[in-house]
Amino acid sequence: MALIVQKFGGSSVANAERVMNVARRIIDTYRQGNQVVVVLSAQGDTTDELIEKAMEISDKPSKREMDMLLSTGEQISIALMAMAIEKLGCKAVSLTGQQAGIYTNSFHTHARIERIDVKRVRDELAAGRIVLVAGFQGVNENGDITTLGRGGSDTTAVALAAALNADLCEIYTDVDGIYTADPRIVPNARKLKDISYDEMLELASLGARVMHNRSVELAMKYNVNLVVRSSLNGHEGTLIKEEAEMEKTMIKGVAYDKDIARISILSVRDVPGIAFKIFKLLADADINVDIIIQSIGRGDTKDISFTIARSQLTEAVDLINKNLDYIGAEGVNFAHDVAKVSIVGAGMANHPGVAAAMFEALAKEDINIHMISTSEIKISCLIHKDETEKAVKAIHEQFGLGEAGEE
Amino acid sequence: MALIVQKFGGSSVANAERVMNVARRIIDTYRQGNQVVVVLSAQGDTTDELIEKAMEISDKPSKREMDMLLSTGEQISIALMAMAIEKLGCKAVSLTGQQAGIYTNSFHTHARIERIDVKRVRDELAAGRIVLVAGFQGVNENGDITTLGRGGSDTTAVALAAALNADLCEIYTDVDGIYTADPRIVPNARKLKDISYDEMLELASLGARVMHNRSVELAMKYNVNLVVRSSLNGHEGTLIKEEAEMEKTMIKGVAYDKDIARISILSVRDVPGIAFKIFKLLADADINVDIIIQSIGRGDTKDISFTIARSQLTEAVDLINKNLDYIGAEGVNFAHDVAKVSIVGAGMANHPGVAAAMFEALAKEDINIHMISTSEIKISCLIHKDETEKAVKAIHEQFGLGEAGEE
Repeated sequence: MALIVQKFGGSSVANAERVMNVARRIIDTYRQGNQVVVVLSAQGDTTDELIEKAMEISDKPSKREMDMLLSTGEQISIALMAMAIEKLGCKAVSLTGQQAGIYTNSFHTHARIERIDVKRVRDELAAGRIVLVAGFQGVNENGDITTLGRGGSDTTAVALAAALNADLCEIYTDVDGIYTADPRIVPNARKLKDISYDEMLELASLGARVMHNRSVELAMKYNVNLVVRSSLNGHEGTLIKEEAEMEKTMIKGVAYDKDIARISILSVRDVPGIAFKIFKLLADADINVDIIIQSIGRGDTKDISFTIARSQLTEAVDLINKNLDYIGAEGVNFAHDVAKVSIVGAGMANHPGVAAAMFEALAKEDINIHMISTSEIKISCLIHKDETEKAVKAIHEQFGLGEAGEE
Repeated sequence: MALIVQKFGGSSVANAERVMNVARRIIDTYRQGNQVVVVLSAQGDTTDELIEKAMEISDKPSKREMDMLLSTGEQISIALMAMAIEKLGCKAVSLTGQQAGIYTNSFHTHARIERIDVKRVRDELAAGRIVLVAGFQGVNENGDITTLGRGGSDTTAVALAAALNADLCEIYTDVDGIYTADPRIVPNARKLKDISYDEMLELASLGARVMHNRSVELAMKYNVNLVVRSSLNGHEGTLIKEEAEMEKTMIKGVAYDKDIARISILSVRDVPGIAFKIFKLLADADINVDIIIQSIGRGDTKDISFTIARSQLTEAVDLINKNLDYIGAEGVNFAHDVAKVSIVGAGMANHPGVAAAMFEALAKEDINIHMISTSEIKISCLIHKDETEKAVKAIHEQFGLGEAGEE
């Protein structure tokens, strides 16, 4: 008998019909002889509706009260799912984050799980019940309700799987699994059978929006076997695990991100401490920096460029302009019409030809590269936004990642 | 510094504008130097919408899961109210039933409060916060969420007032207070300045739908000073307390109830144990009996009549018909076109003229009396439903209860 944790997102439980469909799928897993713990998100637009209610009252509601408000969404989902499962003849019980023993720190709206007391969940499983846990929420040591922020329900599922030492954690979503590239851009993109945590982390941070990195990191830390699969069909999905089969497919996939902007700070003095000044300023303003490139100093100055989320561009440029003297820079320029395309794969660093092949693919399409950044398992190029699709297709083709060109 | 518990119903917090209005009223009380605990119901139709969601999934959802579902309604209200109060510049904190320490037994959907651990509420008050408590809900010893059933939020308010030894418990509703008769029927009905718990209990059970009896009983048991007043204006309301001013106004008011039906069981044998058989049958079927009249036996048979809620008439008649042999009765008849009019007032039993005056009022209007039932502090008459308004007006006039005829 295996213990399986399943997570279903908000669109999977958006109405009564979908709730019943998911209930049948859960029961299938249960009737195959497994113990089943299910983590649910709030139904469809519920969270947005609750946020709107709050905004009608205050443009800056306290975070504690937002958590009190928003946590009701998941609570509604678990109650309805328990009813659906019972209606179909199986025993079920719904548990809030608190009842499931999910203890977090007190950072309301973006709390971190500190520990999970699994006694209640274990007792309910032992009693033959399917256990439905409200995702996205926990409780701090004062008994106050907290929420986990972005990717919260995935995090709940992975954390529960880790704490319960589950055999498998299945993340049901609206895609079939992890692909070698966005299938909307590359029609012959291939679904990966498996991928390593590291590679998944890079793909996610590079724009593949299947799972939030936080839950992948947690899975890696506790060695939880994760499967990403579709709630709409019975397809197999992609297994995310410690080590994918070594060296079988070096390049795992092509990712892109259009929601970024590039900022360059010009002619800063080439002395120690400048980068610290710049990025401390940005960090204090809660602006997340992605790629950073620093040119080699020429004379006694150098340029520093970096990318950030496009939504933070104005704020970041204002901040830097105000602090040009403090930083000791001549000026700042920026571009909002950029995109990042990346390839990801373990062992890339040991194959010098990989980077060259990627640049070749872009060159053949006459795509100019603005910035380059590499790591152990990824290479990213900043290009003009309008050329994103062309670039992704070219790179995908170059590495023979498609169905026809399987290695 | 007084400690005041206030309770606002669902219509008082139905939308953002009303939430802000109630927030201002709460802050007024706080700024007058009081500690304030506020109990809230779910917004407007929220509870009905949640019930509908459940019904789309199961026609008989488990009670535990219904409680899990419905308790979210009050949780939304308290979070929004906390935001509103904070927006207006005061400190506030919302607490679920569990966080407020409200422990109940495990009878889901109609749980009873067993104890309240007020530590958290006291701590929050001491920190200068206005405390918003979700009405209608608590938690059992397993940490499962329970709801209190009908009149639940009033019960939460009174129980909290008792546990906190509050100076006052204000129930805000859509009426100004307790009137000598329904103002829609008797335009010159007078608002009572005060009324005793006993009298309020009789008025409520006789059809005055201002407060649920359960919360009045609780207030009486713990000697909580209750005030019923309107959330729509600043009027004074009616104080419900241990002893109203003795003998000032003997008759407190006229009440009526049209949602009843009369059943008569004919020619049962005049031997011991018959009434037990009948009312045990009804109790086992969860049918609440109100007035019971048993005629004096003539020969070796007697008739037994009683009233019940009209919604249970069919069920009750079917049940009795099936058990005629067991009961030993000849037949059953019933009437659904009846209503009950009653007068309530302490000391009535010592004034023999009161009953006569009530019957005189009905006689003058040519209203036939089907059944009569009396107690220490009330007299009820069963009449034809169509004559209810006429009867209430006549009785109100007879006892000079109106504004003009104040004693």
